[in-house]
Amino acid sequence: MNEVVQKLAEQKAEHVARLEEWLRIPSVSTDSARKEDVRKAGEWVRDELSWAGFETRIEETAGHPVVVAKWHGARGAPTVLVYGHYDVQPPEPLDLWRHGPFEPTVEGDNLIARGATDDKGQVLALIRGIGGVLREKGSLPINVTFLVEGEEEIGSPNLTPFIEAHAEELSADVALISDTSQFAPGVPALTIGLKGLVYLQVELVGPNRDLHSGSFGGAVANPGNVLATMLASLKDSEGRVLIPGFYDDVRDLSEAERAEIAALPFDEAGFCRDLELEHLHGEKGYSTLERKWARPTLDVNGMLCGWTGEGAKTVLPSKAMAKFSMRLVPDQDSETIRRQVTDHLRRICPPTCKLTVHCDHGAEPVLVERTSPWLVAAERAVEKGFGTKPVYIREGGSIPVVSEFKKILGIDTILLGTGLPDDNAHSPNEKFCLSDFQRAIETAAWLLDEMIRMENPDR
Amino acid sequence: MNEVVQKLAEQKAEHVARLEEWLRIPSVSTDSARKEDVRKAGEWVRDELSWAGFETRIEETAGHPVVVAKWHGARGAPTVLVYGHYDVQPPEPLDLWRHGPFEPTVEGDNLIARGATDDKGQVLALIRGIGGVLREKGSLPINVTFLVEGEEEIGSPNLTPFIEAHAEELSADVALISDTSQFAPGVPALTIGLKGLVYLQVELVGPNRDLHSGSFGGAVANPGNVLATMLASLKDSEGRVLIPGFYDDVRDLSEAERAEIAALPFDEAGFCRDLELEHLHGEKGYSTLERKWARPTLDVNGMLCGWTGEGAKTVLPSKAMAKFSMRLVPDQDSETIRRQVTDHLRRICPPTCKLTVHCDHGAEPVLVERTSPWLVAAERAVEKGFGTKPVYIREGGSIPVVSEFKKILGIDTILLGTGLPDDNAHSPNEKFCLSDFQRAIETAAWLLDEMIRMENPDR
Repeated sequence: MNEVVQKLAEQKAEHVARLEEWLRIPSVSTDSARKEDVRKAGEWVRDELSWAGFETRIEETAGHPVVVAKWHGARGAPTVLVYGHYDVQPPEPLDLWRHGPFEPTVEGDNLIARGATDDKGQVLALIRGIGGVLREKGSLPINVTFLVEGEEEIGSPNLTPFIEAHAEELSADVALISDTSQFAPGVPALTIGLKGLVYLQVELVGPNRDLHSGSFGGAVANPGNVLATMLASLKDSEGRVLIPGFYDDVRDLSEAERAEIAALPFDEAGFCRDLELEHLHGEKGYSTLERKWARPTLDVNGMLCGWTGEGAKTVLPSKAMAKFSMRLVPDQDSETIRRQVTDHLRRICPPTCKLTVHCDHGAEPVLVERTSPWLVAAERAVEKGFGTKPVYIREGGSIPVVSEFKKILGIDTILLGTGLPDDNAHSPNEKFCLSDFQRAIETAAWLLDEMIRMENPDR
Repeated sequence: MNEVVQKLAEQKAEHVARLEEWLRIPSVSTDSARKEDVRKAGEWVRDELSWAGFETRIEETAGHPVVVAKWHGARGAPTVLVYGHYDVQPPEPLDLWRHGPFEPTVEGDNLIARGATDDKGQVLALIRGIGGVLREKGSLPINVTFLVEGEEEIGSPNLTPFIEAHAEELSADVALISDTSQFAPGVPALTIGLKGLVYLQVELVGPNRDLHSGSFGGAVANPGNVLATMLASLKDSEGRVLIPGFYDDVRDLSEAERAEIAALPFDEAGFCRDLELEHLHGEKGYSTLERKWARPTLDVNGMLCGWTGEGAKTVLPSKAMAKFSMRLVPDQDSETIRRQVTDHLRRICPPTCKLTVHCDHGAEPVLVERTSPWLVAAERAVEKGFGTKPVYIREGGSIPVVSEFKKILGIDTILLGTGLPDDNAHSPNEKFCLSDFQRAIETAAWLLDEMIRMENPDR
């Protein structure tokens, strides 16, 4: 493998040229005017995978197509399913970009373009690394399937049916995704935990029409006041959720996990400065990173009632609405939490208002066991590729495909993110560090070796 | 006076024809395209008052003009200041009207048109009654000033400066307004109490931008949750306001007042049916009418934060906003309450959010003492005009001009409303009962007699 990695290092300029070519295709999946560009970006990655030696095809869906590429020639060896996406966020607001969002521009060690880190740069690193080995050697030590979709930025509406319909073909021992971040520059990371999600919309209806707050106030329950009271009762002043049973299935952090989190070089003062906050706030007895990563939360996402325009309107609103969501941690289950919250809301809603609860969607929390051999393999590969061991981190957000892989295919996912927290994903001047791009390519090559080594320690 | 009233009864058709003529002028004060029509309606009432024998003029303001009419020939007799307005609400939604809103149409005993009850019908009854006496007899037993404005429906922005600038000319012993309702059909009423108002807008700012609720939730205070908690803490579950000092100046209802309110033929079941409510709600120990009329209240008028469109957006909002208002009763003072509430909000706002409080406007509560001789005179006039004694009621809303008269001119106001609660003021198919119109005209004539009688009981 050493010679191949040496070769990959020599091809640095070519890797960057290929990435720039892909980034020039404005594959904005949410923009129907860009439908053809999205397809072009899918065809581009199909061609790239074919060129490396994979058996590839492009599959139509109800929306944008899915690219599948396979090399399954390593009989008896494990199989890894690599997931990525070729669509990008809209580039707006355009006036904040220093260059055209689809005119990739090098600034120092960074490449600036929409999609640079999310996810074209990160997924191309895996393709150039793994594909580089295949092209160079004509074979891989393990079996590899690539699944690259074009709808991640619009919520992957067609991906779950696709995985279900192709479960046998996509079956694997582990999944690999490169769509997250390192902890900090020079601190590569493996993300082992993701939060789950329960998102609710509640509506309260009182009187059948908006009323004059003078003529009716005091005699009729006000859905705005009732909503505020109900929402307020869901958490105590220290941020602890008061819904009965909410913490029943929460797996406490072990002392080792807490020590590991505490050892991370987290810059809390910088975190506050960035948000222009003088005070942080959260559940007592936990650090900021623990609250972000390992404690379940409840947040209002939106609230609306009555008159919200300019000036005064003395209305007693007929209706009040709120959206709020809970982020879940292992071993909470979204369906159980959804039921607990809904039951609780019905219990605390006074008889003066009619309550409607609508559950938008849920996701399960994810935690990869630290004993997973794939994690060990990834750690070793990162150490070789980046020259330093990765730290283990979690993420407060949800990556639905990870729980879908677990649910449908029964496999864990290695989240080997090679971006940086300040890469401006979804924002103007998105960037990707070119040195990290090269390190990620070499890490992907090493990972093949390390994965087979986990199966055959003697090799 | 008997002969004059007899004459007024014979002119019934003429009264209605005059009202219809006025109602055909679409004097929508908020609609700048109707500016000329608003002026025409003002000129119409000026001409009507001139014809009756008053010394009239139209006065320009920064907005729509004010009409002033005087007959001050009763040396040594008291003076009454009659206030009304010639502008109307917009007629929209037009498709709900059975006839054109400015094509007055008689249906049974009702005249249907925008402005029929609010306020053209009610103010014309006073003009036809008082003016009828003046035209018939050439003099009045008391001095009368009419002040008819064209901006009531847009909050009378130019009226207070006008009253202040003409305080001497407008000085009087009592004011008279006919712009409220009877208690029910066949139950005429004098409104003796109005609530005051303190209207606030509060804004909470947390982090400097909307955040991802997964990546930041639990570690940062959410202004939406904080706002709900602050609003919830302002009232207990029975509707009692928890702001320190809020009830300090509240004048309790006397046993006699409570008995009088309890004796009114209030149809609580019908009240619920109309609002499609199964349960009413309010301060413990008080009846619905007592809560509406004589207890201070606090109501959310509007709330907004985060994502309120369709579907789910997992945002932790940077800001949250609410508008809420308190209705005040004697002897609460709007400035004191405003200060108490603002101080309280600053006290309960956690250090994690920046609070801004903006006070939109205030109004003072009003209560006419039952011992007022003008009230006795009005009661006797109503008994003669309507054939039955009026009941005494209050109103939960505010009529700012009443507290302005008190503040600037130092006088009480007799609120002799001749509309009905279901007159659809501000709504489609606004109406005014033609029999009540005639009764109101005759009551106005009798009122002159009764007012001078209060001064000279021997007459």
